[in-house]
Amino acid sequence: MSTPIPGFHAVVPAGGAGTRLWPLSRAARPKFLLDLTGSGRTLLQATVDRLVPLTGADGVLVVTGERHAAAVAAQVPGLDGEAGRLLAEPSPRDSMAAVGLAAAVLQQRHGDDVVLGSFAADHVISGTEAFEGAVREGVAAARAGFVATIGITASGPSTAFGYIRAGAPLGVDDAPSAQHVQGFTEKPDEETAAAYLATGEYRWNAGMFIVRVGVLLDHLAAQLPALASGLREIAAAWDTAARGEVLGRLWPGLTKIAIDHAIAEPVAAAGGVAVVPGEFAWDDVGDFASLARLVPAGPDGVTLGDADDVVRLAASGSFVAPAGGRSVTVIGLPEAVVVDTPDAVLVTTRSCAQDVKSAVDAWRAGGRDDLL
Amino acid sequence: MSTPIPGFHAVVPAGGAGTRLWPLSRAARPKFLLDLTGSGRTLLQATVDRLVPLTGADGVLVVTGERHAAAVAAQVPGLDGEAGRLLAEPSPRDSMAAVGLAAAVLQQRHGDDVVLGSFAADHVISGTEAFEGAVREGVAAARAGFVATIGITASGPSTAFGYIRAGAPLGVDDAPSAQHVQGFTEKPDEETAAAYLATGEYRWNAGMFIVRVGVLLDHLAAQLPALASGLREIAAAWDTAARGEVLGRLWPGLTKIAIDHAIAEPVAAAGGVAVVPGEFAWDDVGDFASLARLVPAGPDGVTLGDADDVVRLAASGSFVAPAGGRSVTVIGLPEAVVVDTPDAVLVTTRSCAQDVKSAVDAWRAGGRDDLL
Repeated sequence: MSTPIPGFHAVVPAGGAGTRLWPLSRAARPKFLLDLTGSGRTLLQATVDRLVPLTGADGVLVVTGERHAAAVAAQVPGLDGEAGRLLAEPSPRDSMAAVGLAAAVLQQRHGDDVVLGSFAADHVISGTEAFEGAVREGVAAARAGFVATIGITASGPSTAFGYIRAGAPLGVDDAPSAQHVQGFTEKPDEETAAAYLATGEYRWNAGMFIVRVGVLLDHLAAQLPALASGLREIAAAWDTAARGEVLGRLWPGLTKIAIDHAIAEPVAAAGGVAVVPGEFAWDDVGDFASLARLVPAGPDGVTLGDADDVVRLAASGSFVAPAGGRSVTVIGLPEAVVVDTPDAVLVTTRSCAQDVKSAVDAWRAGGRDDLL
Repeated sequence: MSTPIPGFHAVVPAGGAGTRLWPLSRAARPKFLLDLTGSGRTLLQATVDRLVPLTGADGVLVVTGERHAAAVAAQVPGLDGEAGRLLAEPSPRDSMAAVGLAAAVLQQRHGDDVVLGSFAADHVISGTEAFEGAVREGVAAARAGFVATIGITASGPSTAFGYIRAGAPLGVDDAPSAQHVQGFTEKPDEETAAAYLATGEYRWNAGMFIVRVGVLLDHLAAQLPALASGLREIAAAWDTAARGEVLGRLWPGLTKIAIDHAIAEPVAAAGGVAVVPGEFAWDDVGDFASLARLVPAGPDGVTLGDADDVVRLAASGSFVAPAGGRSVTVIGLPEAVVVDTPDAVLVTTRSCAQDVKSAVDAWRAGGRDDLL
């Protein structure tokens, strides 16, 4: 399975703060730079590890903010410098600018026909074979001119994810399970999610896009011409001495929009998007409840870190991250989430996991930027 | 009210680990050395502050273990050295040896007729006037030959304290509210405690004893003659160069017994114990549930420390002690108890407060003596 796909390049947008995973995830050291599951690899490294067999050693680009470029380069050797596969954004302009920049740079370097696959740096996937198979079908659909996405087979009526609605078979030879996309939905309530799954037509939207760079940039030119031309001008200067000047002049004015809204939704409405089923386990690790499901459970709970640093009494199932070099003791709280770091301790429950963002807001409002 | 009582000396046994208040209370820095209520004074200092108006400046003795002698001397200036009011025990031999040693030393220095009042170093009391009034009546009962105790008016059917059952009026002029003690009880279950209170005869046993030193030592000689003679021999050598030799020879063999069992119970059975009602607020601060009631509550919970270090969301009423220099965030756990210290974090609930001791046992069993 793991022969690289000729002409396939992976783009990994490495952004997003992961605020609901605070205090593990911080502005200066966000989610994608962390080994959140205790696997020994950070989410970014695991993402690159997963893609290299499909792209070959030199086929992965990472797009990240300037403040994280050094950390990314340290975690993924061989990206930066001469290699030119670490694209640093002067400021965050959302996912369309990030993926569009990568597409325009790839077009400059390799022409219109290379296929780009975009995969977030901070998701967790297991099931290598199924992932690779889905990407290969996605590339085939992309070569046929579609914007391909991978729709994850839902394990339940999650309200944390958006959904993709599949329609008729695509009819592309090397993408036998691909279907046309009828549309995308926002995160639904639980009843709606259950109704979606009952139809058999809906899959989770993991935000993965696979498309020929020429096709992507043409769609972008049609939908958002100013953004497209700005990105083309930046890309033309990227591998030259003019990069800094052009970036400084054009980047701040680029339209800030998610690729879903900029491309996926309007192009799907016009019949140009395909979905390939992804029969692998996927999670965007959106909060501690999600993370607690991903870390292997010990006999009395889930420990992200050294189990010798934790004592639990009547607290089976609690999630504890002893990441501050201290001992953690939990008594009588089986649903507890306890995260200890050198400067911040978080105590909550799995059911309150989404509220962590509000707590971070409260610290910010209190002027405690040192904790963010 | 605050004229010192002639011939009255206070003895403060400063021992006990306060294990249920771990990780605030540690073997090396136990409960009595801590400012547990945020008052600005440690429990030991507050105890001494409360007694000095009754004894005069030189009337308080503290008995503590050798390992804590330096900390006690630092917290209560003027006790040690020439003053001779800091008695250091080579090893813990329970409360009878501690109070008996102080009694025997006072007898050596001042004779049989001085009155000794024993008050634990780690209790919290509020209501100075009522406390002083009770002690004055206790001293009057002691001068009449009784072992006097103070029975706290119960605020509810606590199962955390022992009870004193009062009987007929004592009939001592300067102790008009004193009564004979019919007996002492162990900590009851809740039904029994409620039944006690319904009779109107029961009060909480705060372990306070007021007695003439001659009377105490005579009772001790009658009940435990070997312990009495050992203490007398040690006391005779205390203020001499022979102290070390005599202590080293006799201390390890002294009977280890609580003063309640050694004196209070048998003497009460013989009609020799009196109780004075204590109409003040008292607590032995036995666990975090108890401590949480004693620390003044803020608008959204009880914080022992700097409220600026705590963010609570849906956690009103939670008890948080940010004592590790870190921020503490609590979400969705209104009954939480969170104690943060430099090397240990404890997360539990008020209703599990008694189980903290088991967690400490678990760390000990795991070889983590550094945390004890």
